[in-house]
Amino acid sequence: MLELPPLVDHHCHGVLRGDLGIGSFEAFLSESDAPAAPGTSFFDTQTGFAVRRWCPPLLGLDPHAPPARYLARRRELGAYEAGRRLLGDTGIGMFLVDTGLPGDLTGPEELARTAGGRSREIVRLEHLAERVADTSGGAASFVTDLAQALHGAARTAAGFKSVAAYRYGLGLAPEPPTAPEVLRAAGQWLTGRRPAGRLTHPVLLRHLLWSAVTTGLPLQLHTGFGDPDLRLDRADPLLLTDFVKATAGRGCDLVLLHGYPYHRGAGYLAAVFPHVYADMGLALTHTGARARDVLAEMLELTPFGKLLFSTDGYGLPELYVVGTRLFRTALGELLGAWVREGAWSRADARRVAGLIAAGNARRVYDL
Amino acid sequence: MLELPPLVDHHCHGVLRGDLGIGSFEAFLSESDAPAAPGTSFFDTQTGFAVRRWCPPLLGLDPHAPPARYLARRRELGAYEAGRRLLGDTGIGMFLVDTGLPGDLTGPEELARTAGGRSREIVRLEHLAERVADTSGGAASFVTDLAQALHGAARTAAGFKSVAAYRYGLGLAPEPPTAPEVLRAAGQWLTGRRPAGRLTHPVLLRHLLWSAVTTGLPLQLHTGFGDPDLRLDRADPLLLTDFVKATAGRGCDLVLLHGYPYHRGAGYLAAVFPHVYADMGLALTHTGARARDVLAEMLELTPFGKLLFSTDGYGLPELYVVGTRLFRTALGELLGAWVREGAWSRADARRVAGLIAAGNARRVYDL
Amino acid sequence: MLELPPLVDHHCHGVLRGDLGIGSFEAFLSESDAPAAPGTSFFDTQTGFAVRRWCPPLLGLDPHAPPARYLARRRELGAYEAGRRLLGDTGIGMFLVDTGLPGDLTGPEELARTAGGRSREIVRLEHLAERVADTSGGAASFVTDLAQALHGAARTAAGFKSVAAYRYGLGLAPEPPTAPEVLRAAGQWLTGRRPAGRLTHPVLLRHLLWSAVTTGLPLQLHTGFGDPDLRLDRADPLLLTDFVKATAGRGCDLVLLHGYPYHRGAGYLAAVFPHVYADMGLALTHTGARARDVLAEMLELTPFGKLLFSTDGYGLPELYVVGTRLFRTALGELLGAWVREGAWSRADARRVAGLIAAGNARRVYDL
Repeated sequence: MLELPPLVDHHCHGVLRGDLGIGSFEAFLSESDAPAAPGTSFFDTQTGFAVRRWCPPLLGLDPHAPPARYLARRRELGAYEAGRRLLGDTGIGMFLVDTGLPGDLTGPEELARTAGGRSREIVRLEHLAERVADTSGGAASFVTDLAQALHGAARTAAGFKSVAAYRYGLGLAPEPPTAPEVLRAAGQWLTGRRPAGRLTHPVLLRHLLWSAVTTGLPLQLHTGFGDPDLRLDRADPLLLTDFVKATAGRGCDLVLLHGYPYHRGAGYLAAVFPHVYADMGLALTHTGARARDVLAEMLELTPFGKLLFSTDGYGLPELYVVGTRLFRTALGELLGAWVREGAWSRADARRVAGLIAAGNARRVYDL
Repeated sequence: MLELPPLVDHHCHGVLRGDLGIGSFEAFLSESDAPAAPGTSFFDTQTGFAVRRWCPPLLGLDPHAPPARYLARRRELGAYEAGRRLLGDTGIGMFLVDTGLPGDLTGPEELARTAGGRSREIVRLEHLAERVADTSGGAASFVTDLAQALHGAARTAAGFKSVAAYRYGLGLAPEPPTAPEVLRAAGQWLTGRRPAGRLTHPVLLRHLLWSAVTTGLPLQLHTGFGDPDLRLDRADPLLLTDFVKATAGRGCDLVLLHGYPYHRGAGYLAAVFPHVYADMGLALTHTGARARDVLAEMLELTPFGKLLFSTDGYGLPELYVVGTRLFRTALGELLGAWVREGAWSRADARRVAGLIAAGNARRVYDL
Repeated sequence: MLELPPLVDHHCHGVLRGDLGIGSFEAFLSESDAPAAPGTSFFDTQTGFAVRRWCPPLLGLDPHAPPARYLARRRELGAYEAGRRLLGDTGIGMFLVDTGLPGDLTGPEELARTAGGRSREIVRLEHLAERVADTSGGAASFVTDLAQALHGAARTAAGFKSVAAYRYGLGLAPEPPTAPEVLRAAGQWLTGRRPAGRLTHPVLLRHLLWSAVTTGLPLQLHTGFGDPDLRLDRADPLLLTDFVKATAGRGCDLVLLHGYPYHRGAGYLAAVFPHVYADMGLALTHTGARARDVLAEMLELTPFGKLLFSTDGYGLPELYVVGTRLFRTALGELLGAWVREGAWSRADARRVAGLIAAGNARRVYDL
């Protein structure tokens, strides 16, 4: 097992506070928004098996305990104590928390406290804009209020995040919209908007991206797989190529989240554009026993100073356990094999492991 | 080696009846419709090497016997006896046979009898429509006759199959065409149709898909690689995303065949949509010594209750042998390694192997 | 380690003549055209680690010597002696050199002499057309001169190469442009052309491709990743499918270079079209410790008589060392494992290794 510094989890979401029944628990093991098909279970996935491998021993059970047994023990301990044990195992020293998801989730500070680490916030652009729209008057005041909210958020946030992949797809026009275009788009969106309606207007999505770029903070972009809201082929990070070119030299780093199954393309962008970085997030948690091989594909083109660890943990403390355990195991086995066969030196392996685990994120987010 | 129940081969085609010369035999080892390039041979492929690994011992020769030696022994035994020995090795208990391919092929019953198993029919939609068109009068009677033929077929078939990927590509409009659109399209197609002309009209292809959906039987869709009739990039299963969304909750399961090299995308669809399933078919047979790694990629996102074994066997009994042997070996090695490293429990591995080998197909096709 | 015949490197570019500082050296380890991001280094890539694995021992240092130590030793020996030692290690007997890259590079003969091998030229179509345009008068004389230059080049060249992927993308219309279209396009391009301006007109790019096809020499096409001039998703070899169909049976072989991360698609085209071949080039050099796995993916669908070795060596003799060492190691380990598990016979493995290393290129380029 590699010795790693305290991890920086540069992309996660917080955990639920209450106790969970087996159905609610199971729903968090999948990106599906529907129940599992009749006769099947989301426990029968790589994520489910990984949870059953790593988590039961942390609550005093044998690995691979049956789901019902595990949930019973979890309720017996209570959500707080179970969360403390699980998060305490992760070795995460710094959480960068995307606070733009709904639900009764722990915020950055509470999450970090439970795990014995620290935290910073990542502000989700679309969520910020929707909150502004909830209280702004017309288009003009929305645009002004949004600018103010963004620059206010930039004072404390570690970075921004865009889910344009979900809202439109990544094939957005690459250049920034003009001020009149933004104003017109704001009018169109606000007019038709139902209460709490989501921002999907492509001009406004581009405006958000470019507003974030001007703050100079790192900008995370969802790419690759996620829940079925998204059309996966429109979330190929290569669709961002022209946006990447347009933002080169602006002093803003772009962090391509997840990427799977297009992670090799994300690695290519990280290899040829100085301001582009790649992440693993969902890609390890959802491939479980295959995490080593998926991580290996990320380590083909991605320069070793450009890959960042994350769990994309959401809802269940178990997903932070799985994300960190899979990462440690996969990286350890991979680099161990490369050292054994002479492809890498031991010193390089140790150094690169530290970069991916924490050093790259510390540099990019200026932690 | 894993102990598996009798396999359900949910996608195959029947075998040729007569003896074969080396050239005709070789042609079945490739998806190409042209002879091998000068100086090369289709025996020099993963499929060719896999046939030479597994089949000669079943006819009393050493593994990796030269092609000419193998073909001579095969003729010596005769096609019937060779077929009996080869199919008898497969351990397939149930064949779901797509009967829409031309050639002097064994039908479902004869195929199953040779192998000591049972069979059901899968009706190829485009082939059914072409047979109806051969005998119908005009557009109106074609549409009526087609509906009748489809619902007749649904009474005995285990499912339907679409090769729209070959005929147009998978980027079809997702919604069902209206009745007038179907009538107009039928008129257009029938007017220009040469004898036995193939159905390529996108409106009619969509009409077939939606007609199949209404029967409630599982619908197989060709995705990924196949012969050069198809443009591979237009056979990406993700192009079906909007159709998948449109058919959700209609009571019809969609089985995405093959998928390679887009099998990770097929796995994603199976993961997030309850009514979507994924298959391996061609992907194992044509990657031979690499089958374990390709299967491993399928087992990343695909829930274990959603992956179905098949051989896509066609023409040669050897392809059924290769399909089953590669599957058993690949699955055994993969799950064995995961159990050894503690990622999966032995009981889970055994259970999941049974699901992929037979259980999932039994549930989906109600066998 | 496999015993291989002298290698045919069917795609490379020549090496720089002078000594190099660490910055200039580092730049050749990446396809990026910008410096490495602050806090990172191109030495921290699979290519960088592979150079440090294989090259220091050839100059009398330990494997994995630090970059500065290696560069100092290299300067101590001088570029000529270092180049002699490095290239002499490669075992390349025949270099096919694309002479269309700028810089003070050794030509085919000088490169081959240093390595103790022989050479032939590959003529880069766009570069040839640009040189013709530099001296031609108007559109009509350009078209005539180009035809003459092309057919002159065909008398001695081993083949042609197109970088249409960089200039427009591979989604070009598949059919040859008509003579009036070519004349009009030439007029458009020449009118607006700055001195030494690059050819990007899609009609002229197609004209070049089809002109090359008529010579009957093999035509190399850049596909897959390269420097950021290119939009990777427009370099998917499958975008060439209709061009491949249009050129079938014309007596011209198409060699799809690199392909990564779309190399499985390139393998598919090589599998179903007799005149299509696949290459590894950049894909091994830039994936280093992962070369075995990338090569394995190429050996899924690509028939064994259709895959060609190359280094894509450019600038640094080190890249020829890395290209050959990675190839030998990866192929040896892969085929060795397949022989050990009984999937391939030893005799087949030896024969296929010879085909990929040299035999296929000898046949395709008629060497």
